[in-house]
Amino acid sequence: MAIGVKASHISFVAHFLGIVGAIMVLIWCISFRGGLAWEATNKNLIFNLHPVLMLIGLIIIGGEAIMSYKCLPLKKPEKKLIHLVLHAIALILGIIGIYTAFKFHNESNIANLYSLHSWLGIGVISLYGIQWLYGFVVFFYPGGTTAIRSESLPWHVLFGIFVYVLAVATATLGYLEKLTFLESSGLAKYGSEAFLVNFTAIVTILYGTFVIVTILSQAPPEDEYSYSAI
Amino acid sequence: MAIGVKASHISFVAHFLGIVGAIMVLIWCISFRGGLAWEATNKNLIFNLHPVLMLIGLIIIGGEAIMSYKCLPLKKPEKKLIHLVLHAIALILGIIGIYTAFKFHNESNIANLYSLHSWLGIGVISLYGIQWLYGFVVFFYPGGTTAIRSESLPWHVLFGIFVYVLAVATATLGYLEKLTFLESSGLAKYGSEAFLVNFTAIVTILYGTFVIVTILSQAPPEDEYSYSAI
Repeated sequence: MAIGVKASHISFVAHFLGIVGAIMVLIWCISFRGGLAWEATNKNLIFNLHPVLMLIGLIIIGGEAIMSYKCLPLKKPEKKLIHLVLHAIALILGIIGIYTAFKFHNESNIANLYSLHSWLGIGVISLYGIQWLYGFVVFFYPGGTTAIRSESLPWHVLFGIFVYVLAVATATLGYLEKLTFLESSGLAKYGSEAFLVNFTAIVTILYGTFVIVTILSQAPPEDEYSYSAI
Repeated sequence: MAIGVKASHISFVAHFLGIVGAIMVLIWCISFRGGLAWEATNKNLIFNLHPVLMLIGLIIIGGEAIMSYKCLPLKKPEKKLIHLVLHAIALILGIIGIYTAFKFHNESNIANLYSLHSWLGIGVISLYGIQWLYGFVVFFYPGGTTAIRSESLPWHVLFGIFVYVLAVATATLGYLEKLTFLESSGLAKYGSEAFLVNFTAIVTILYGTFVIVTILSQAPPEDEYSYSAI
């Protein structure tokens, strides 16, 4: 179902949005929220690791992992290795990012796992892990039979898109939840920080959209193995 | 890119989830939140119209509009009429639903349009309206040339999926935002109402997922005109 635009062209827009989003979340957490720390008496600095790791790790590096298999002008085994390594990095950073949210809550006596954001977040990281493991076993090592691979590929792509869209949606819930807490503590509703956070969320959504459009676009001509199977 | 399951089977799961979601949002707004009203001294009753109209109108009837074109065992012109009429109903209920949020804010002296939910909501309803108008003009009346129609169809489907996914994501933001307000006013974080709202959000996401999977599934064999063009 390739649409008539080149995947590499669309992916450049995604790369650009990814860089913009990464800069925006760093400006927010460092300049507006006081910086990042693993251990601190100001527990908010521990929380600040959470949006940084989730956006740059799970969403942006995860998106690059998705696009790499479609766009890189390399042979199938090399692309597959890059695809799975980038997804592993995204998954590990995502797990550390979720851990920082629990660490902040526990050290600040804040309840865990009551909000929709946290519920979906646990769901996303679990499904992401399952998807990675299934992909590793079936497509990399030890690898399934040809029949299992070709049967699995469209489901791997479809389930991957589902998990990725859910990850982006969960991120937008996180921005809204944190900003609502800050605004209920007095942060200006139309102030510069509120606008920065909302626009970071919009850039996140646009990045996710261009990641998905990239994999629906035309693969490089030398490639017969990419997502064009769907 | 049809996947190997029948669209009508998947759509039955979606219909069921739609009914469950509609019942859940009605129980929430009527039994837990005091009921629905267009005019009331208790302004919360005006707000309660908002989630009911957005979920049952824009999301559920909008989803039925999407699935109708894929699943109904009818001729193309009949399906097209049902598709556009259902989308028009969804759009109108969505516009009224958004109006009730403004009405509640204005009569309660609450600020408008500062949250991510409201920004995306305005974006979704605008894009939904543009998508409907474009579809009407190109595919219904006066209708574009054959070349324009066949060129437009994959983009109509792709843009429609994008707007619909964004609508579902915006709905989840709405559940989280309202529940966060209620919890900051003392509602129990692990209480029955909080669980009802979070599970309504999850049912909404599952409904949206099954709507999308329906249009990626196999159309009835007598049909050559449905989304199988992508």
